[in-house]
Amino acid sequence: MNIRLTQTVKKGGCAAKIAATTLREVLSSLSLPNKHPDLMISSDSFDDAAILKINDQLACVETLDFFTPIVDTPFKFGKIAAVNALSDVYAMGGTPKTCMAILAFPLMSLDLSVMQDVLAGACEAISQADALLVGGHSIDDDSLKFGLSVTGHVHPLKVWSNASAQVGDDLILTKGLGTGTLCAGLKNSVYTEEDISHAIESMMTLNRITDLLSQDSLSAIHAATDITGFGLLGHAMQMAQASHVCLEINASMLPILDLAIESLGNKNLTKAHRTNREYTHAHCKINQGLDENLQQLLFDPQTSGGLLIAVTSEQSQQFLQEIKGRFPLAKKIGRVAPSNQVEIYVS
Amino acid sequence: MNIRLTQTVKKGGCAAKIAATTLREVLSSLSLPNKHPDLMISSDSFDDAAILKINDQLACVETLDFFTPIVDTPFKFGKIAAVNALSDVYAMGGTPKTCMAILAFPLMSLDLSVMQDVLAGACEAISQADALLVGGHSIDDDSLKFGLSVTGHVHPLKVWSNASAQVGDDLILTKGLGTGTLCAGLKNSVYTEEDISHAIESMMTLNRITDLLSQDSLSAIHAATDITGFGLLGHAMQMAQASHVCLEINASMLPILDLAIESLGNKNLTKAHRTNREYTHAHCKINQGLDENLQQLLFDPQTSGGLLIAVTSEQSQQFLQEIKGRFPLAKKIGRVAPSNQVEIYVS
Repeated sequence: MNIRLTQTVKKGGCAAKIAATTLREVLSSLSLPNKHPDLMISSDSFDDAAILKINDQLACVETLDFFTPIVDTPFKFGKIAAVNALSDVYAMGGTPKTCMAILAFPLMSLDLSVMQDVLAGACEAISQADALLVGGHSIDDDSLKFGLSVTGHVHPLKVWSNASAQVGDDLILTKGLGTGTLCAGLKNSVYTEEDISHAIESMMTLNRITDLLSQDSLSAIHAATDITGFGLLGHAMQMAQASHVCLEINASMLPILDLAIESLGNKNLTKAHRTNREYTHAHCKINQGLDENLQQLLFDPQTSGGLLIAVTSEQSQQFLQEIKGRFPLAKKIGRVAPSNQVEIYVS
Repeated sequence: MNIRLTQTVKKGGCAAKIAATTLREVLSSLSLPNKHPDLMISSDSFDDAAILKINDQLACVETLDFFTPIVDTPFKFGKIAAVNALSDVYAMGGTPKTCMAILAFPLMSLDLSVMQDVLAGACEAISQADALLVGGHSIDDDSLKFGLSVTGHVHPLKVWSNASAQVGDDLILTKGLGTGTLCAGLKNSVYTEEDISHAIESMMTLNRITDLLSQDSLSAIHAATDITGFGLLGHAMQMAQASHVCLEINASMLPILDLAIESLGNKNLTKAHRTNREYTHAHCKINQGLDENLQQLLFDPQTSGGLLIAVTSEQSQQFLQEIKGRFPLAKKIGRVAPSNQVEIYVS
């Protein structure tokens, strides 16, 4: 069985996502049933997690994600898809509880062992998250798609928002950047899975950090978000806008996956590299002296990317110390400054 | 815009579902993370709803379903897909709370107005269920697929199981049978949507009954399940096996959708008509004097089918009276008898 999953689909992973602008246009004319006093956070753009308060101690985090293969090995694809879906719960400060599988599988062209391996990869991720796989739905389809719907729990007063970053906070990024270009390189057959094993390992790592953190570090978290399809600057911009601050990012401090800069230089790009640049253009000021590939990395769309966390500057070194065993690339990448003409400044 | 959605897909609705036997084979070798003391019901076959106990007053019902178009009008397809997904929560005695959309959409071949109409249909169903649409995920794909992931609430002691039907109970079916053959007839261009409007109306009707029932009728419910892809006999057999009883069904009492018998006679069939017959064969005894089309109806795979409910015989007339405004075809179709050589007897 030597089928390479990335060669069975036209568009890999998040490249197949329907653009946020398209969705907003479609949804804008609809009367969405999404208003309720207990709905603490809703996901109008079908993108992130929603939170429904159950009582004073408990809220449910709801999120759902699925995509086409971004790597060739079924087990790794299943695990990455699951880790990616679970990530939205972690990004809210929640704990994943139950998962349901979303599976579209081409029975005609792929062996059932592929299905088994995809599910085995997902099961490994779900087990590592101490969550449960409680059901799902599967259909026979032209191309493979896999993902999870996840329900998590969070204390209503301990939800990590992206709207409460505070001036003076340090910005920590937990994973290296570059999964977008490296997966494009894999699909383009420029790299093998072995070449990009660093990125694959990163995408298979759960964004679980609360079990590593001391009480002091937990209390030091002011805001968090996960870096996914909009890239570092897209998600950083959302945090800056929601928090009414400016995020100052030091490009020389960015954690970078092996080969990512070379891959960007070789033009292993996706449509999102361009659309992410457009999305953030009016809101970011980037030092034009920066290497062009490093600039491009700021817009690289991430799959199962890291968390961007605003932490008090007093605690940030200790925080990094606590998570570095699981997140060896985690780094302080900048700081939160007062609101300015632009939301993001990259030096 | 005169595209008929059913003509854009090879397999309509549940016909595209991966067979339960295939899934079981794949899942059997996996170590599924699905054991936990609070997991009251798990869905090993990726088919029904799961229930996780939160505390003594509350459990969460989790279910997920999506499929390809079974009708031509986008709004109706979206509404049916949503009603069908919500149904599993009702079948457990639960109340739907939050929904997330699962959307695969062919941007190249279908206008965005189709997406809008599908979502509008879903929103109407979700609003009628007093639930919320809190997010979802959408991808660009070769063919349209739509459905929902739903989280509902239920009191842990008030879950409707299919394992507690009691000898002497009456069996009530809330909707007419025949959606499988009628949708096949529509896809085969034998019928128009107008011809099968009776079936479409039925599929667009939420399986919500608790708001109609008196306290006496609510207490009279011993077991319930919803009739979907395995047809009446498939789901009845599951109830009989789980409850260790025999279900006696009177074929002359079955509620039948307009044109369904004619459509079966015209051989508008799906693969499931055959596989459902095989699935139940060893466990059912059917009076062979019955009209062949009526026999076939017993195996007709339903989309958004009715609830099969075991109710005390003392209360069943009153129960029917209470729900008939919303479910005009609801009928008593048989009774629960002691366990026998076969699980189902159809006279």
